[in-house]
Amino acid sequence: MKKVGVALLGLGVVGGGTYEILKKHQEFFKKTQGVDLVVKYVMDRNTARCTELGVDPAIITTDINVIADDPDVQIVAEFFGGIEPARTFLTTVLKKGKSIVTANKELFSKYWHELEAAAKEGKAGLYYEASCVGGVPIIRTLTEGTQANRILSIKGIINGTTNYILSSMSDEGKTYENALAEAQRLGYAEADPTADVEGFDAMYKLSILSSLAYHKKVPIDRVYREGISRVAIEDILIGKELGLTLKLLAISKDDGKKIQARVHPTFVPNTHPLASVSGSFNAVHLVGDSVGDIMLYGRGAGALPTGSAIVSDILYAAKQTKHRYCPFNNTGTATKDGDFADDFISKYYIRLTVKDEVGTLGRIAGAFGKNNVSIVTVLQRDSRTEIVNIIFVTHETLEKNIKKAIEDIKSLKGVTEVNSVIHVEE
Amino acid sequence: MKKVGVALLGLGVVGGGTYEILKKHQEFFKKTQGVDLVVKYVMDRNTARCTELGVDPAIITTDINVIADDPDVQIVAEFFGGIEPARTFLTTVLKKGKSIVTANKELFSKYWHELEAAAKEGKAGLYYEASCVGGVPIIRTLTEGTQANRILSIKGIINGTTNYILSSMSDEGKTYENALAEAQRLGYAEADPTADVEGFDAMYKLSILSSLAYHKKVPIDRVYREGISRVAIEDILIGKELGLTLKLLAISKDDGKKIQARVHPTFVPNTHPLASVSGSFNAVHLVGDSVGDIMLYGRGAGALPTGSAIVSDILYAAKQTKHRYCPFNNTGTATKDGDFADDFISKYYIRLTVKDEVGTLGRIAGAFGKNNVSIVTVLQRDSRTEIVNIIFVTHETLEKNIKKAIEDIKSLKGVTEVNSVIHVEE
Repeated sequence: MKKVGVALLGLGVVGGGTYEILKKHQEFFKKTQGVDLVVKYVMDRNTARCTELGVDPAIITTDINVIADDPDVQIVAEFFGGIEPARTFLTTVLKKGKSIVTANKELFSKYWHELEAAAKEGKAGLYYEASCVGGVPIIRTLTEGTQANRILSIKGIINGTTNYILSSMSDEGKTYENALAEAQRLGYAEADPTADVEGFDAMYKLSILSSLAYHKKVPIDRVYREGISRVAIEDILIGKELGLTLKLLAISKDDGKKIQARVHPTFVPNTHPLASVSGSFNAVHLVGDSVGDIMLYGRGAGALPTGSAIVSDILYAAKQTKHRYCPFNNTGTATKDGDFADDFISKYYIRLTVKDEVGTLGRIAGAFGKNNVSIVTVLQRDSRTEIVNIIFVTHETLEKNIKKAIEDIKSLKGVTEVNSVIHVEE
Repeated sequence: MKKVGVALLGLGVVGGGTYEILKKHQEFFKKTQGVDLVVKYVMDRNTARCTELGVDPAIITTDINVIADDPDVQIVAEFFGGIEPARTFLTTVLKKGKSIVTANKELFSKYWHELEAAAKEGKAGLYYEASCVGGVPIIRTLTEGTQANRILSIKGIINGTTNYILSSMSDEGKTYENALAEAQRLGYAEADPTADVEGFDAMYKLSILSSLAYHKKVPIDRVYREGISRVAIEDILIGKELGLTLKLLAISKDDGKKIQARVHPTFVPNTHPLASVSGSFNAVHLVGDSVGDIMLYGRGAGALPTGSAIVSDILYAAKQTKHRYCPFNNTGTATKDGDFADDFISKYYIRLTVKDEVGTLGRIAGAFGKNNVSIVTVLQRDSRTEIVNIIFVTHETLEKNIKKAIEDIKSLKGVTEVNSVIHVEE
């Protein structure tokens, strides 16, 4: 029986879930996987937490070098999150030949190349299934399940906090502020929710997934990012009337020449498989050139779902006789500026406040037409007052055309305000 | 660059799709996977088909020994389907150390142990992602993505033909016969549709998936099987009124003591993720003890989707330095009779034709009660005539109780016919 020593850095939510799975299933893994996973070290300053989880005090350490220098440790799983000390610690152990397993999307998306260089130096492996979409095996799907395909697009709901907030706005008619407060009370959102609600978390994940999918590094600064903090409940309710559901989507596409990647609030038709992914669930929809449409759905966060991905990575890492590295780092296909599209094509939902006067609608239609934006749907709301809302849904158009049209419309007589401009994906 | 020789046995729909992917993406795989996949042999008697696909006549063979004896062939992909000659050919090449990749669910579910013994003898690998759910990487998910879990249940729509037929009955109100005829016209059903519509295909796949999920062989003769050929359009339409969608579900569960596996028409609530999987799409819903709910969705058949799974397996096999075998064959955990549950628990939908007389409903309710079956919903249809339909939906109950209740009800005064008894899954 192959014995594999594991060190856990951090024993928070996911670290705790991982420890629980490793203890509960040690015999099960011996029987079904032929591997004896032994927790050799736990690094956490919170001794109360360690005691609560039943960690033997003898295996608690605060010194990374104890772990790095122990030849019986083969795998180090990291749960600190953020950049430091994770970056230094993981680089240290990789160089000593220990494979790492991590859920740290921020570190991974920013310092992948650095971690990979350290891994090559130590002939160690990098495993990061848990960094994207919790327990859903999306990384394994990309690297071992659909690798026969050129991936054409990724569309995902990959942040549970924002999906919970948008679902509760849509289902219960709550404002953003009230939905956020509720999510915080229930533990679905952090006290400082910025990383989730402003789309940073989804941006990190989309950078990782897109890099794997398109075999080229898609750095975070090439991912357009827009959060949900300015989403108005009015638009969610109007969208419902139009058969559209609002989601924070992470979208990337590769047309074979240019890559585009973006995170923003997006309307999808109610019939789209992603429309029914609600609450804290996550889902990723892929299109491959041979396989066509694939969707994976599951829990994107939580102690045990993310712990499941961590332990699956540990078992996977334990069985590799030779670790593999990313082709885009191996072959030097550094991404160039020209690899990215700066002209997005999308449909748009636009809500305007206008004065109910003869000629206003004609002037607006003229401004769209002048900028080559054609309209699918016009919806006028509530004409009991002199101020009315008009909603337009466009055909596919270049983002630069929409921007120019909106600039023109803003200065038109009778237009009071451009309230919302929201992407619509089919 | 690692050069890997591949032989393709059969060049039908999936074999052709596989050949197309291998030719189209040879350079892409060299760049992204570091493997040069070279088609060394094609075995097919249909030379017109070979010419159509542009196969070099020099690599066409009809002799399996030519392939088995060529040291430059590492992987043999099989597309014959059925038992012979696939069984003999694959056993032959495995013993010679060539790994096999196959979509052959019937062969694999029936002769897995025999193929595995041959593979061990030849130190070769067995890869069969394409045998279940076409391009959807469900096998890789079970073996490399959720292997940290005890899998508690599998529920899947894993046969595209029956899902197409049931969707077209539900959406267009067609009878079974008309929906089948249309599916045959469109190529979604075979001239002899038995393997699909009677649930054999789903049974083979469920046997394979359940064996992997529960780490115990679940042989096909332990899978309860009931097809869709007796499904009445009336029940689909009544189900719609009750918020239920009818699907041919493959279901298996492991409660830690007993396994149960079954394929039968099943009502699911419209809100269930599987309810919206329509047409020729497939989906598998898993529950793991840590990861919770996961669902995978995609195309379950077709030249390129299934070819995607075949080529992903070829790439995966090409990278293994040591092939792994199934723990339930390795450790001798042969499945015993006592490992299987013979008392299914389910909810049921029951449709009766009765005479509209005082006391009939009371007698029926009495028969359910006597057999410990409690009722959630009663729906009486159309009382304009003296003969009426009554529909009952039960709470969860043992199958043996339902059987006894139905026997009792059949002999009651006023009961003309028991029209349908259909499982309901939450």
